[in-house]
Amino acid sequence: MYYTDKLLQYPVRVERPDPVFARALQQAIGGVEGEIRVCLQYFFQAWGARGPTKYRDLLLNTATEEIAHIEMLATAVALNLEGAPLSIKEDIANDTAGGSVLNGMDMRHVLSAGLAAMPADANGVPFDCSHVYASGNTAADMTANVAAEATGRALAGRLWNMTDDPGMKDMLAYLIARDTFHQNQFMAVIEDMGGLEANMPIPNSLPPESQNDEFAYVTLGFNRDGSPPPEGRWSQGVSIDGKGEFSARPMEPLGQEPDLAPPRPDSGAQMQQMVDGVTTPGAVKPREAKGAGGVVEAIKHALDPDRP
Amino acid sequence: MYYTDKLLQYPVRVERPDPVFARALQQAIGGVEGEIRVCLQYFFQAWGARGPTKYRDLLLNTATEEIAHIEMLATAVALNLEGAPLSIKEDIANDTAGGSVLNGMDMRHVLSAGLAAMPADANGVPFDCSHVYASGNTAADMTANVAAEATGRALAGRLWNMTDDPGMKDMLAYLIARDTFHQNQFMAVIEDMGGLEANMPIPNSLPPESQNDEFAYVTLGFNRDGSPPPEGRWSQGVSIDGKGEFSARPMEPLGQEPDLAPPRPDSGAQMQQMVDGVTTPGAVKPREAKGAGGVVEAIKHALDPDRP
Amino acid sequence: MYYTDKLLQYPVRVERPDPVFARALQQAIGGVEGEIRVCLQYFFQAWGARGPTKYRDLLLNTATEEIAHIEMLATAVALNLEGAPLSIKEDIANDTAGGSVLNGMDMRHVLSAGLAAMPADANGVPFDCSHVYASGNTAADMTANVAAEATGRALAGRLWNMTDDPGMKDMLAYLIARDTFHQNQFMAVIEDMGGLEANMPIPNSLPPESQNDEFAYVTLGFNRDGSPPPEGRWSQGVSIDGKGEFSARPMEPLGQEPDLAPPRPDSGAQMQQMVDGVTTPGAVKPREAKGAGGVVEAIKHALDPDRP
Amino acid sequence: MYYTDKLLQYPVRVERPDPVFARALQQAIGGVEGEIRVCLQYFFQAWGARGPTKYRDLLLNTATEEIAHIEMLATAVALNLEGAPLSIKEDIANDTAGGSVLNGMDMRHVLSAGLAAMPADANGVPFDCSHVYASGNTAADMTANVAAEATGRALAGRLWNMTDDPGMKDMLAYLIARDTFHQNQFMAVIEDMGGLEANMPIPNSLPPESQNDEFAYVTLGFNRDGSPPPEGRWSQGVSIDGKGEFSARPMEPLGQEPDLAPPRPDSGAQMQQMVDGVTTPGAVKPREAKGAGGVVEAIKHALDPDRP
Amino acid sequence: MYYTDKLLQYPVRVERPDPVFARALQQAIGGVEGEIRVCLQYFFQAWGARGPTKYRDLLLNTATEEIAHIEMLATAVALNLEGAPLSIKEDIANDTAGGSVLNGMDMRHVLSAGLAAMPADANGVPFDCSHVYASGNTAADMTANVAAEATGRALAGRLWNMTDDPGMKDMLAYLIARDTFHQNQFMAVIEDMGGLEANMPIPNSLPPESQNDEFAYVTLGFNRDGSPPPEGRWSQGVSIDGKGEFSARPMEPLGQEPDLAPPRPDSGAQMQQMVDGVTTPGAVKPREAKGAGGVVEAIKHALDPDRP
Amino acid sequence: MYYTDKLLQYPVRVERPDPVFARALQQAIGGVEGEIRVCLQYFFQAWGARGPTKYRDLLLNTATEEIAHIEMLATAVALNLEGAPLSIKEDIANDTAGGSVLNGMDMRHVLSAGLAAMPADANGVPFDCSHVYASGNTAADMTANVAAEATGRALAGRLWNMTDDPGMKDMLAYLIARDTFHQNQFMAVIEDMGGLEANMPIPNSLPPESQNDEFAYVTLGFNRDGSPPPEGRWSQGVSIDGKGEFSARPMEPLGQEPDLAPPRPDSGAQMQQMVDGVTTPGAVKPREAKGAGGVVEAIKHALDPDRP
Repeated sequence: MYYTDKLLQYPVRVERPDPVFARALQQAIGGVEGEIRVCLQYFFQAWGARGPTKYRDLLLNTATEEIAHIEMLATAVALNLEGAPLSIKEDIANDTAGGSVLNGMDMRHVLSAGLAAMPADANGVPFDCSHVYASGNTAADMTANVAAEATGRALAGRLWNMTDDPGMKDMLAYLIARDTFHQNQFMAVIEDMGGLEANMPIPNSLPPESQNDEFAYVTLGFNRDGSPPPEGRWSQGVSIDGKGEFSARPMEPLGQEPDLAPPRPDSGAQMQQMVDGVTTPGAVKPREAKGAGGVVEAIKHALDPDRP
Repeated sequence: MYYTDKLLQYPVRVERPDPVFARALQQAIGGVEGEIRVCLQYFFQAWGARGPTKYRDLLLNTATEEIAHIEMLATAVALNLEGAPLSIKEDIANDTAGGSVLNGMDMRHVLSAGLAAMPADANGVPFDCSHVYASGNTAADMTANVAAEATGRALAGRLWNMTDDPGMKDMLAYLIARDTFHQNQFMAVIEDMGGLEANMPIPNSLPPESQNDEFAYVTLGFNRDGSPPPEGRWSQGVSIDGKGEFSARPMEPLGQEPDLAPPRPDSGAQMQQMVDGVTTPGAVKPREAKGAGGVVEAIKHALDPDRP
Repeated sequence: MYYTDKLLQYPVRVERPDPVFARALQQAIGGVEGEIRVCLQYFFQAWGARGPTKYRDLLLNTATEEIAHIEMLATAVALNLEGAPLSIKEDIANDTAGGSVLNGMDMRHVLSAGLAAMPADANGVPFDCSHVYASGNTAADMTANVAAEATGRALAGRLWNMTDDPGMKDMLAYLIARDTFHQNQFMAVIEDMGGLEANMPIPNSLPPESQNDEFAYVTLGFNRDGSPPPEGRWSQGVSIDGKGEFSARPMEPLGQEPDLAPPRPDSGAQMQQMVDGVTTPGAVKPREAKGAGGVVEAIKHALDPDRP
Repeated sequence: MYYTDKLLQYPVRVERPDPVFARALQQAIGGVEGEIRVCLQYFFQAWGARGPTKYRDLLLNTATEEIAHIEMLATAVALNLEGAPLSIKEDIANDTAGGSVLNGMDMRHVLSAGLAAMPADANGVPFDCSHVYASGNTAADMTANVAAEATGRALAGRLWNMTDDPGMKDMLAYLIARDTFHQNQFMAVIEDMGGLEANMPIPNSLPPESQNDEFAYVTLGFNRDGSPPPEGRWSQGVSIDGKGEFSARPMEPLGQEPDLAPPRPDSGAQMQQMVDGVTTPGAVKPREAKGAGGVVEAIKHALDPDRP
Repeated sequence: MYYTDKLLQYPVRVERPDPVFARALQQAIGGVEGEIRVCLQYFFQAWGARGPTKYRDLLLNTATEEIAHIEMLATAVALNLEGAPLSIKEDIANDTAGGSVLNGMDMRHVLSAGLAAMPADANGVPFDCSHVYASGNTAADMTANVAAEATGRALAGRLWNMTDDPGMKDMLAYLIARDTFHQNQFMAVIEDMGGLEANMPIPNSLPPESQNDEFAYVTLGFNRDGSPPPEGRWSQGVSIDGKGEFSARPMEPLGQEPDLAPPRPDSGAQMQQMVDGVTTPGAVKPREAKGAGGVVEAIKHALDPDRP
Repeated sequence: MYYTDKLLQYPVRVERPDPVFARALQQAIGGVEGEIRVCLQYFFQAWGARGPTKYRDLLLNTATEEIAHIEMLATAVALNLEGAPLSIKEDIANDTAGGSVLNGMDMRHVLSAGLAAMPADANGVPFDCSHVYASGNTAADMTANVAAEATGRALAGRLWNMTDDPGMKDMLAYLIARDTFHQNQFMAVIEDMGGLEANMPIPNSLPPESQNDEFAYVTLGFNRDGSPPPEGRWSQGVSIDGKGEFSARPMEPLGQEPDLAPPRPDSGAQMQQMVDGVTTPGAVKPREAKGAGGVVEAIKHALDPDRP
């Protein structure tokens, strides 16, 4: 269960409201690198957690923190929108070196939200919960969390660089610190679980017969000229999971040319798909198709250029 | 530029076509853990790569491989659909212990695709390219790639477990091996770049003043009763990035209660939002609002219970 | 800021796990009538609230409750999935009167989530935050909230009816009660703001000249035969907002036939769109188009059936 | 069945074409508060209507009107786009106080639509029919309709305020009047059905045992410090539905700490999820898991730091 | 299987980087008229192809080419973004006649991608694979492909017109040529299959009894006044498929007024939906509903204005 | 403007309600091949039509017809749902040879819609208006319309084949006839505009210099081994547009290896992306980057394995 105290986790100040920066901040709320995503991701990982409870508790704790981050950013957007132009007349009157403000802002901040934040990204694309990764595998989830915090920190850094407002820079420096911590935290969970080597390949509980070992540690090359793939740590030495030796070689196809059965007569295909040569319809040779029944005759008739 | 030879990377055989398993396989094609995602993700990372070319080349190589994986899975879906019921009559005629096949299959395999694969997941939700993570930061991208390969391997393992068909099990064992390798490969890129410690926190190029260091290595607790957060590797010892010392403490709010300006009269809000107490409309006290002009009078009139 | 105590708001018990009912429950988590929606909706309304703080505080309070509802439902889904078939072999072995379980369950509960809830609806369509209505107008938001709680209660009632599990029925009866309350609560906010009449039409702050009063209280009829529209409370008596008298009449068009300018030559249209009659190309009469320059000649040439 | 006469319901004039305002108008076409939404919403409510036919007929009538509203707005967009810059050269040549026009317009108006409207919102996000609420419950649908018309009128008012064009202001004043009427109309349907009290809680047909009455009329508080929730009409007096007495109190958790079973060995989880303590792998204590079979041994071996 | 050689199909040069044009180019990558769409569309058509292999091979070949087109455009976007403003300060410093660059660019090019392309359109809406049309019917697919290439060529032409950069114009002229060819190619496939007449109506394999021939070649009119529909080639002469004679006439409804059963008592509807007249609740006449049982009494009581 | 008469265009009868077939019918309502799509597509093409009015009028007429088609299908869905199981108990009681009905139906037909149609496809994915193609180019739009009618007819044929209900077969035979006609109608528009040759390549108004003619009529081969592409009508003879001669040849890359500038120091990349070799951090050679300033030193320090 959850509780609030109505206070912000960290102060949010905007000295010079900037409606265009409000648009940029939306990315940190509703973007795929944003806070709604990590909030829901950690919640769903926690609520579905099977295994040692400390990981569930940590996820629940972090998810609860992330609500406060959305709250800070939503407050920042609302404050940046105070003074935004509500009409083209106002917009022109305020015109400065940067040009029209309406041009650069998310017009829905005026039209839909009445000068407040929305659960959408910097282009107004609403957040979509398919980005909530919760796989039921703790190690896989941790890698997804590190990725989320890494892109989240990159985003926050780019926002920090974009603005000159001291209040905004201060708030972002706080969020950047939390992203640093959470990256470390989720890598620490993997260490707590025995480290990368003990956990890889993820999942580590698949039965051995489910893997074709011959292809598990080899960099395959797909260069047209058959040259080997690029060299690096991935092409030599012990694998990161400690269970193989890296190597590299060009790939040649091992499989067949796919050969699907001809379409069934009652499956909505064209009759021409059931004949072998179709450029000269009069000479068609109907292909064998399951249950083709009277279809062969129908095809002959339909494709006969001399038919009445 | 790209080339094909029409052959499959690895043989695809289906001994006992199963239209319900065809639905399950769709998750590996168009699911968020699937092959379209990694294919496009590695391509966009490669095409936008700035920095040492070997990483770009590796990504390009791997992306090219992933097309062949989609191809294998699409072929597997089409083969599993051969013999699927096209009508309710057929469905009933084929009824077996497992019950209706139409009930369990993706009906769009018949209705939309004519017995072939679609770029959608096991519930028919089409793949959406917002899942293509390419951040411009190589380390962040590598963590996203490891996450994708980890959930991809979990998915492939669950599919392997779900089916009894030897051909399908063989194909999946090949794909599982490649997921193993690619997890290792992307971790190897991080090692090639100097290892986790040299690369964390990601991005490692933000200026020091962009981070509030006080909050960069501390597990904050959000328990209602003020108790500390769960303990583990994340609450003590040197941080994973080697740049701090983990600690833990309960969080208390540092910020204010948010206080947004009252709505502007021309912003489409309710008049009642511009008064202090609204339960007894006759006694309203209009709040100060920028440019409130004659709005105060309008509010008084509108909310006056004795108005004509 | 937010806090947790790890406990459920109300007990969640599942006596007979039912993976198909787990799919149905997803609608209450990630459906448009579900709990993620109201949770985020009330949060964004609160975070953007301008006006009397009591409404913001109430919204914040309710949003915080809704997280606990998602948590209860996610727990219920996970419990219903315990014992679900992981393979076709298991599915067949468990076959009962109800037929295949795999057929009826959300396969992604196995493939993607490892037997846990997802932020998606009963068809696996992920929740999309465009459903979070927060308009900046408190009265409009209250009507949206009543609508959300009304459809939410209808959904919960249908789920209650669908299941026989006493634990699930008990949990749903609790959620149904909360939906009853929240419907009442949001209508009470409107009463607190002076009642429906004082607040309608929403928004009540638009300047009088922004409305064409002639059409503000009349039921217009769009029957082909010019007959009047259906009669009822909406066609006679004082309007609900007390500001007009209802009436009814057939509508006849007041506007023109739309007449857009011909396409500009450099806008990617067909040349044929720039001529008046096109069936007999040799007799084309090019239409006037801004900047048509040499286009007229080009059109004549291109459409000339005798051109070389 | 449906008919047209090619005429507009109300005149659409644009005196000074403004491609940036064309973008804003898109919100009223394809936004969630827009006309496509209400048009389809009323149609689907009508087509699925079960109960007295007058409500179905009214919905059908109103839906038919809404097509004409989309038509008016689409015409307005096309007229505002006449004269829009088609190239960067034109854009610079036209440069005025408001700055670049291309910057502020929806580029897809040029690139995709050839200077015409699209079924998308002001950010180019296409309308998605999940916003069509038709619940099968007439009262719930009416509240959704009032909400749609309230946000629709707020949007139209904001557009009215944004533009200076007399033709556009005239068209919007007509649409605003219709939104006023439709709000009143849908509230009048509720009155026609006996009024709010007779209809709430919605749905009013659930059996009494489906509701836990103890929680049906109480404002629960979720303040961290246990203080009561905000007071107002919702915390005292008879409830709006007349079926209870409002009260308020802090909520304390009534449920347990969720306890999910450990992951099944064949479900794609990590082996570490099946042990009790994982920081010291050598001392792991495997948890009981259904069908754990040889998994315990596998875990011990895999997590043994001294394994070969 | 697939291969790469790391080279571009055609040179990509950008003489004057233009971040706003980079946004426009996104439409050709991730728009519905763009290259990701055709690439995946041709791949899925090929992988699901049933019928003569030459069509599958041609589709596979073309799909492989399209990857190279995405690559060219992604490279073009990245080059156009070099020098883009990363901060508001830089943006103002660079201010030119065209006004703010940040206003006009896709901010996610900075915030999310670090100056590189994304699989999204010019408004930042990610590509969604529901646009991949692969119907299992070769003729239907060919028409979809011609449509895709026609809108693709219109888009490329509009982009060519929009820019002044000689490198970009050169690249686009190449892509425009390929669109010309692919339109011709897919029409040539239809000719190869016997031509339009032999293939229409698509699909041409439906049994005769599945079509109500009376309505197969008549332009029906839906004018309110019963006037005939517009005349043209479609209203007279032999039909394009050669199987009928065009005619035209006004349509009059042939069907009934829809009459759905009243709602079932346990289906979550309102009780008022189960009575015939609801304005005067005391005089309600409950409608017959399947299994209405004690519902009639419940309705009478609930709607009785004198109930206690 | 639009009108209704409440009657169906053609009778809709369901003799044996089948909730699973109701799910299948959804594809024809809200699928990408369905009626909402063509309805809105023709409306938006008409409302944005520039050029001869007869084409606009024809599109308006057809769009108006399509509303009636949605209405017929929505009615058919509602009728098929009468008698659907509302609870698991009912479902089991009704169990027949086909197995569980709940398993195969769209549960949202019960949970969300109360036994009525929804604007979604057979998998419950809501229709998304990005599928409404209206390009501003009449010929391109006609090809899109033919494609829509071709896939629509394939879908209707598959539904006709799937069901045994005579009422449903009768309704579908009517819709199939209309699809036949509309395919012919839109091809007739192209003929009315001068025929395929006069209109291709679409758009036919691009200036000659916008096309690189060398590549406009050649089938390029992308076979790995350099073999020519598949032969057919597309590789020889006069092109379909009559403006070129088909040929074929293997493609060799004409462009460079893409070479993007190194990342800018303030763009959120990794420092390792700014050095030439990164495996041996101590020996790094920083790459030139615009404004690299003190970054070189920072990189050296950060990557120095001996740093304190």
